[in-house]
Amino acid sequence: MSAYDDLMAHERETQALSQVAGRLGWDQETMMPRGAAHQRAEESGAMQAVIHARRTDPQRGEWLAEARAADDVARANLRHIRRDYERLCRVPGDLAVALARLTSRAQGAWAEARGRDDFAAFAPVLAEVIALKREEAAALAEGGDLYDALLEDYEPGMTSALLDEMFAAMRPRLVALRAQALAGAAPPALGGSYDEGAQMRLARDLAEVFGYDMTRGRLDKAVHPFSSGSGDDVRITTRTSTLDPFNCIYSTIHEVGHACYEQAINPEYALGPLGQGVSMGVHESQSRIYENQLGRSAPFCGWLLGRMRSVFGDIGVADADAFYRIVNRVHRGYIRTESDEVQYNLHIMLRYDLERALIAGDLLAADLETAWNDRFEADFGYAVDRASNGCLQDVHWSVGLFGYFPTYSLGNVYAGCLNHAMRAALPGLDADLARGDLSAPTAWLRENVQRHGGLYEPRETITRACGAEPDAEPLLAYLEQKFRALYPG
Amino acid sequence: MSAYDDLMAHERETQALSQVAGRLGWDQETMMPRGAAHQRAEESGAMQAVIHARRTDPQRGEWLAEARAADDVARANLRHIRRDYERLCRVPGDLAVALARLTSRAQGAWAEARGRDDFAAFAPVLAEVIALKREEAAALAEGGDLYDALLEDYEPGMTSALLDEMFAAMRPRLVALRAQALAGAAPPALGGSYDEGAQMRLARDLAEVFGYDMTRGRLDKAVHPFSSGSGDDVRITTRTSTLDPFNCIYSTIHEVGHACYEQAINPEYALGPLGQGVSMGVHESQSRIYENQLGRSAPFCGWLLGRMRSVFGDIGVADADAFYRIVNRVHRGYIRTESDEVQYNLHIMLRYDLERALIAGDLLAADLETAWNDRFEADFGYAVDRASNGCLQDVHWSVGLFGYFPTYSLGNVYAGCLNHAMRAALPGLDADLARGDLSAPTAWLRENVQRHGGLYEPRETITRACGAEPDAEPLLAYLEQKFRALYPG
Repeated sequence: MSAYDDLMAHERETQALSQVAGRLGWDQETMMPRGAAHQRAEESGAMQAVIHARRTDPQRGEWLAEARAADDVARANLRHIRRDYERLCRVPGDLAVALARLTSRAQGAWAEARGRDDFAAFAPVLAEVIALKREEAAALAEGGDLYDALLEDYEPGMTSALLDEMFAAMRPRLVALRAQALAGAAPPALGGSYDEGAQMRLARDLAEVFGYDMTRGRLDKAVHPFSSGSGDDVRITTRTSTLDPFNCIYSTIHEVGHACYEQAINPEYALGPLGQGVSMGVHESQSRIYENQLGRSAPFCGWLLGRMRSVFGDIGVADADAFYRIVNRVHRGYIRTESDEVQYNLHIMLRYDLERALIAGDLLAADLETAWNDRFEADFGYAVDRASNGCLQDVHWSVGLFGYFPTYSLGNVYAGCLNHAMRAALPGLDADLARGDLSAPTAWLRENVQRHGGLYEPRETITRACGAEPDAEPLLAYLEQKFRALYPG
Repeated sequence: MSAYDDLMAHERETQALSQVAGRLGWDQETMMPRGAAHQRAEESGAMQAVIHARRTDPQRGEWLAEARAADDVARANLRHIRRDYERLCRVPGDLAVALARLTSRAQGAWAEARGRDDFAAFAPVLAEVIALKREEAAALAEGGDLYDALLEDYEPGMTSALLDEMFAAMRPRLVALRAQALAGAAPPALGGSYDEGAQMRLARDLAEVFGYDMTRGRLDKAVHPFSSGSGDDVRITTRTSTLDPFNCIYSTIHEVGHACYEQAINPEYALGPLGQGVSMGVHESQSRIYENQLGRSAPFCGWLLGRMRSVFGDIGVADADAFYRIVNRVHRGYIRTESDEVQYNLHIMLRYDLERALIAGDLLAADLETAWNDRFEADFGYAVDRASNGCLQDVHWSVGLFGYFPTYSLGNVYAGCLNHAMRAALPGLDADLARGDLSAPTAWLRENVQRHGGLYEPRETITRACGAEPDAEPLLAYLEQKFRALYPG
């Protein structure tokens, strides 16, 4: 066997172990008996130790030095493996261990502080996390920008310079759109009560309508919806609330977007470096286009109203237009994960600017709450009432995820670009959506984005699909057209 | 850290990985999407490779050579680890790999041959398995008895000499008891149809009645009932059949016996060599005493009839005595796993004698079907009608499990001894059982057997609990008393 073949066989086994570790995480959120938590921590720790030892094995470096790529697929494989291995080599083992220990403690401190709305109690631990993350970023950056070095983990090739330019174009237009939408009377929310078993049956139907292959996945309930796994075992979870069936419906469609991406990747890449979604941003583009540009479109909402009536009976909504307005209502709120299409990216930009300042050393952890609240009021037009609705709402920073937030907005921007290209390619899309027929758009996304897995770099993946470099304009035009029509002001 | 501490830390991590691999097996039988089978094989293979590499790591041998035991627990830990390591060292790596490959192929060949009732198609593959198992046994035995070397894997300390003596005492008395029971008219089976959801609710209730801790386990459906996992995550499965609710009820109680053993082991032994049931025989003693001596006793059957009536309504049974007779009906049948208490051990002795002859080289694979059918008719009094009801019914030999079968009967013998001692210690047992109160007997088993895990050798575990060496007499006396009363002849 050549060095390349040896390396790939090693990767394949490591990836198989990672799939097992991921499934253990799925089990923990869906099936695990509650008394097993302590034992599970040891089991997960043992899995992580094994996987980490394989990824940092010097033999991997030797194979990498010798391996020669025979074609584009092999070149892409080596690019992924080399990036992973070099990253691991740059961070000293002691620092990696210290970060794992600290973030485990910090997550507990964050949960406790959030429960008591007490940011001051969390600030010192957050300062420690930031100090170690700066150390890690310095090791990774090798003289370059600290924040960019962290961003690279989630969105290879993306830089803060590109993000700054993108967000600068988005922020004023979204602030203006938000102001216009919130100026008038808020539309009514959905009333009534909805059987949770019926919601789950509807969720299963919708998953299949959007092309999720249930023979290679399953849908269960969990506190926080997620998608997990790659290849032939991609599982999703959703949640139900008797008062709000949209939570279940749109969480499901969102996770189906993630899961369909994983299921559609070229099977030849399975258990290899190309056999997973290429970046957080591209992944989020799939979940968001399924959820929003397709799932919250007017024609699809018309079809969904019929499905809801057949499942739940009369839901107290006059017609398709009223239903579309309820699905797309813009309303005041503090929580990112509950936000509408207009305000969502304002949440992300706020976090992006603050985390860049924290990593740069321009903002101290102790000053985060004030900075958050000031920025929130400026962009959203109303004041944060308490820390759990403000800078304590997200788990990310406590577990060291700096550089992750902007990938959510990148996903929306990519979804905007893909939607633009897809609509040009599929003139009959609205008629299809009105019939609940998602086969054409999901096939277009499979063919143009999903099947490639990690073959191309993230930005190139979108560029190839759209025939143009990714840009915020299509998203902004889509949002302005949609929400100016809904909120003419 | 001392060599002992290093070794134990290594064992703990290996055991945590084994728990993960076991849970992957549970997932495969309960939750896995059917399209994931191929990927799962790679995932399981990767886990097995990692665990095998850790167990054969020469460092483990070095620690073993240096480690000193400070107390009885440490001595027991080292005994388990040394046995495991020395066994692995004796079998050449090539042979282990060849066996794994061959048995994987043989299992497929067995399933196909069984489907077509064609033993001749399976015989050549079985001959190959036997040849490799003989080779393995020779490597393990180091000049000793081949069969005993294989038996040691499942029941450390047990020998064929001890088994021969035990089975010689059992066979004529069980053959006579079987003849007496089958001489008269067969009692009626249960009629009617039983809702499968209601069966599962009843199964959950029964599991808790028998002391299964649902906060550290869960009950699901699977094709073949099993118990899996140790410590704080011990899961069981059962099955339902609309026509036969007893299948669900007694499969559940049987698996609860296994699971309660694992759950009751001293938590200080968790993820160590003592933190699991000490042998297959002792394990089976717990499942069998829960299922039979407790679950099929007359007073418990009286209580169970009341529970079944409250769950299913009228089940067409006149009274508690009639119900007890249905639960304990002895009837003609070919299949071991569907057998009653009287005939079950006859099934095992048949397999034990045949597999000893196969491993000794005294019986050729090609002659197995004839040998099986002759012996079956001699002991059961009726002839095997086809191979799938005869020598193709069990998967064991195809996957190389020679030496495993006798542990089933050992479990029954041990259960007989434990029942004798337990009844002496708990004079109010029948009154408790009549109330559906299992707290006293399950506490007695926890205290006298289960909590010790692997601390004592299997035989010593039973001897300590009973105050006497294990012997077939209590089981035979119990069976004769019970079934002569049911079938006075």
